[in-house]
Amino acid sequence: MSEAVGFVGLGHMGLPMAHNLLRAGYRLRVYNRTPAKAAALAEQGAELVGRPADVAAPGGIVITMVANDQALEAVTLGADGFGEQLGPGGVHLSMSTVSPAIAQRLAAHYQARGAAYVAAPVFGRPDAAAARKLWVCTSGPQAAKERVRPVLDALGQGIFDFGAAPEAAHVVKVAGNFLIVSAMEAMAEAFTLAEKHGIERGQIASMLAQTIFACPIYQNYGKMIAEETYAPAGFRLALGAKDLNLVLDAASTARVPMPFASLLHDRMLSALAKGRADMDWTAVGLAVSEDAGLK
Amino acid sequence: MSEAVGFVGLGHMGLPMAHNLLRAGYRLRVYNRTPAKAAALAEQGAELVGRPADVAAPGGIVITMVANDQALEAVTLGADGFGEQLGPGGVHLSMSTVSPAIAQRLAAHYQARGAAYVAAPVFGRPDAAAARKLWVCTSGPQAAKERVRPVLDALGQGIFDFGAAPEAAHVVKVAGNFLIVSAMEAMAEAFTLAEKHGIERGQIASMLAQTIFACPIYQNYGKMIAEETYAPAGFRLALGAKDLNLVLDAASTARVPMPFASLLHDRMLSALAKGRADMDWTAVGLAVSEDAGLK
Amino acid sequence: MSEAVGFVGLGHMGLPMAHNLLRAGYRLRVYNRTPAKAAALAEQGAELVGRPADVAAPGGIVITMVANDQALEAVTLGADGFGEQLGPGGVHLSMSTVSPAIAQRLAAHYQARGAAYVAAPVFGRPDAAAARKLWVCTSGPQAAKERVRPVLDALGQGIFDFGAAPEAAHVVKVAGNFLIVSAMEAMAEAFTLAEKHGIERGQIASMLAQTIFACPIYQNYGKMIAEETYAPAGFRLALGAKDLNLVLDAASTARVPMPFASLLHDRMLSALAKGRADMDWTAVGLAVSEDAGLK
Amino acid sequence: MSEAVGFVGLGHMGLPMAHNLLRAGYRLRVYNRTPAKAAALAEQGAELVGRPADVAAPGGIVITMVANDQALEAVTLGADGFGEQLGPGGVHLSMSTVSPAIAQRLAAHYQARGAAYVAAPVFGRPDAAAARKLWVCTSGPQAAKERVRPVLDALGQGIFDFGAAPEAAHVVKVAGNFLIVSAMEAMAEAFTLAEKHGIERGQIASMLAQTIFACPIYQNYGKMIAEETYAPAGFRLALGAKDLNLVLDAASTARVPMPFASLLHDRMLSALAKGRADMDWTAVGLAVSEDAGLK
Repeated sequence: MSEAVGFVGLGHMGLPMAHNLLRAGYRLRVYNRTPAKAAALAEQGAELVGRPADVAAPGGIVITMVANDQALEAVTLGADGFGEQLGPGGVHLSMSTVSPAIAQRLAAHYQARGAAYVAAPVFGRPDAAAARKLWVCTSGPQAAKERVRPVLDALGQGIFDFGAAPEAAHVVKVAGNFLIVSAMEAMAEAFTLAEKHGIERGQIASMLAQTIFACPIYQNYGKMIAEETYAPAGFRLALGAKDLNLVLDAASTARVPMPFASLLHDRMLSALAKGRADMDWTAVGLAVSEDAGLK
Repeated sequence: MSEAVGFVGLGHMGLPMAHNLLRAGYRLRVYNRTPAKAAALAEQGAELVGRPADVAAPGGIVITMVANDQALEAVTLGADGFGEQLGPGGVHLSMSTVSPAIAQRLAAHYQARGAAYVAAPVFGRPDAAAARKLWVCTSGPQAAKERVRPVLDALGQGIFDFGAAPEAAHVVKVAGNFLIVSAMEAMAEAFTLAEKHGIERGQIASMLAQTIFACPIYQNYGKMIAEETYAPAGFRLALGAKDLNLVLDAASTARVPMPFASLLHDRMLSALAKGRADMDWTAVGLAVSEDAGLK
Repeated sequence: MSEAVGFVGLGHMGLPMAHNLLRAGYRLRVYNRTPAKAAALAEQGAELVGRPADVAAPGGIVITMVANDQALEAVTLGADGFGEQLGPGGVHLSMSTVSPAIAQRLAAHYQARGAAYVAAPVFGRPDAAAARKLWVCTSGPQAAKERVRPVLDALGQGIFDFGAAPEAAHVVKVAGNFLIVSAMEAMAEAFTLAEKHGIERGQIASMLAQTIFACPIYQNYGKMIAEETYAPAGFRLALGAKDLNLVLDAASTARVPMPFASLLHDRMLSALAKGRADMDWTAVGLAVSEDAGLK
Repeated sequence: MSEAVGFVGLGHMGLPMAHNLLRAGYRLRVYNRTPAKAAALAEQGAELVGRPADVAAPGGIVITMVANDQALEAVTLGADGFGEQLGPGGVHLSMSTVSPAIAQRLAAHYQARGAAYVAAPVFGRPDAAAARKLWVCTSGPQAAKERVRPVLDALGQGIFDFGAAPEAAHVVKVAGNFLIVSAMEAMAEAFTLAEKHGIERGQIASMLAQTIFACPIYQNYGKMIAEETYAPAGFRLALGAKDLNLVLDAASTARVPMPFASLLHDRMLSALAKGRADMDWTAVGLAVSEDAGLK
């Protein structure tokens, strides 16, 4: 029988991921800040616990899928966190989009206790999570990565490794999200240019999605930006703004000027200032239309 | 037997396109500023002429594949141009990347003479041209577009139409090129961020090219930017700079602020100032590395 | 008695300048597209003529103070222009804000005819023109500059020379206007930052204007931007947009990336798209407030 | 006899300020991390102490002039800090350029202990500090501000008040520094444009400094940027980079997109990446020249 795995964070992504682990035969001890979300999981056999610390078994695996650095710090190093419970041989499989800095801090914390931090952030939205179609980027100690491999196989369709540094996979993840938002802004500019020249946004979007940009990001987000369906949110703009902050922090640390990222950060800031935190993150495109005198 | 078609401009793109027309059974009258390039075509049966005006037969079709607006103006409205030779029923099939403004001027010129301007710029590099894998965007009068359809079928793998306005397909083309350069810059920023965090550029490029950005632009240009192979040029940076100018001109005309395009224009300008006109246009990425203190 | 001087362009700037020349004892032959504006001048002794060509006397001086390159081209090289009337020894004293490119063209035109082009654009608004408080930047042939010196002394409070090149003073002028708009944007950003932190815009503006930025640009425009009095226009935003275009054209020609100028160009474009052409050019600051969710 | 004042931080600014207080008759207890710098002060009667905590007398005044938030936190809330020694009635007169956030934290800390935080950052370089020519911006509790007024009068030539909020004057200070760096970048762009059009940088700088920008920032920094004398540092670029970070943090908190500030942040980051931390902060202009293919 499979080993028990701890799981913290049952949001839009965490919940379907936890389901897939149950389906793959893992026993789960789960914690979520709002317990109601865990009810369906409990019916399927997951054990609900009252504190993050209770998901961990000495030497076991704990997965986190939480909103941001603050949440991750709380469930690990906070008063009720599992940071001291993981123990020798334990692995913290950190799958959220968090900062390289916190990964380094946690890795040092675990190393001093004989445990390991494995970074494993994912690309994919909730439907991809449900369909086990996530792409996973990993980094961390080799032995720990090998140990969690079956767990990751139960969650995604492919794993890409980026070496031993605890923060490496997180850098790759935030760089990837930056590329996504860059594509959104570029499409919004291109489609608005077309629109003001009398061309339908949907027509240019469709052509590009079938030809030189025939890939999911341009196809899916391109459709939303062409149709200007910025709500409801598949991924909240407030979270996208957080990710841009992570990119710029990582850029400052490494001293890499990223002018596109700076510009996108300002777009996000403006969207937040205008009350668009709960719109989809594609709503950066709304400002492009507004700046062109549309809307 | 197929009708005779005029063809002006035997550069990296024009030459393989003309070959494909010969292969498809078209008789060709070709003109190139430097006649030597046309020799191979002549061996295959193309008729070489000494002036652009001589490629046109009254009521016939003339294809242009030239470097820029100035060249297009010279071969059409210039002293030796074919602008007066096309005559009633003639079609100028304009496949270069040129400005919406010159398309409107030429369309008006032809309309007054009973001829037609069909915009048909293409996406694809010389190898795609040779393999009949170009994507073609068209706009112009419906009857004229129907007439040239077999010609376009002999050149590309798909045609996308954008209505009757002579400039529409050109707007789409320059918008597409803008999207390509945006992707380059974004990748260069992301890869440099990764590099300065100790991650190999090639590794992140490869992951993205297999997952969320599995499309030609990210795959092909991503590889070049990851490997920093900015020469020899597949597409000269000087031409990319020209295309960015076309984008910004179209944006000014329509009053669409395009901050990414403005930033890319400055990147191109800097590259030209540094003597990089003959490098590949992916060399915009070189400045990203330099700004980060690399090189 | 002073010699007769031709004067073309009686707008907000040209009219008070022409008055000052009359006051200084010059005889004037004036042309304006809308003759009504010249009536007051005529009462004071100016001779009104019906075509630009008629302001010029062979070997004489003609001043132009017109809106843009197109207007300058029309009154010089156009059908009724004075470009052929100036004759050997004549001087075209070009005081408008126009492009370096047209200056070079006109200089070559005159040189071939024994006449001279003297660039003499000015800094100062209409009230400064009326008060003979303009600052004049000159460039052009030395002898011609010496000849027009008394005329310039009657118009401004100081002359700064930039050598023999016909375009030099125009480059300086557009660079200066770029600096002014940069200061506006910077102030708008700073004041909006203060405002959203609960500080009155007027208070920070006033402190800066009395201390490290105690100069006219920050004092006068700072007050407008602090009070957000963007109308009526002292200098129309549409003209500011034109000037930004001149800056970017000069930057492209010389291959100088100017990221602030590119950003300001986009601000201007957005303002035009939103129908703000007739507001004061300080209205670039309005978008800063809007982007911050104010208004 | 004047009361004793504590003084922490004897750097380029702090040392001349402390001298002026001695001259004005204040008794000083001073602390500096490197005691050697305090020797000259001791000869003039200042009392040197070994820990920040020792500069404070219960209910007294302590001035801080330190490098950044980290240093300020260390000397106040750190193990040897004076944060607990100030006591009821005490005033921390905080004159460094620090973040609005730390001002709020310290103000809350003191309020709970009956003491007060007065923000009093200054504009002016070391020579202005020595000459009592600083401009001081204040904010904080009214009574505390009145009490420290004579102290500030001994240090500067003018005081501008921004109300009761502890962070207000700091926001104004970082906004002011942002304006300064914006002026530097704008001048560097303008001068480089001129240079590449064959005009001497010094000539355009001089004209502007005598006319529309006749104020210290444009006169002093304009000269340095025109002459490209980027070393030795009057104000280290690394500190300028820190200030830009403070601006962007304040902008993020208040949700104010500041595109000029974002661009300048990237300039600073690039300069740091290129090893220019110890050059003068005007060296942002160096990159403008490099981007234009000069150097």
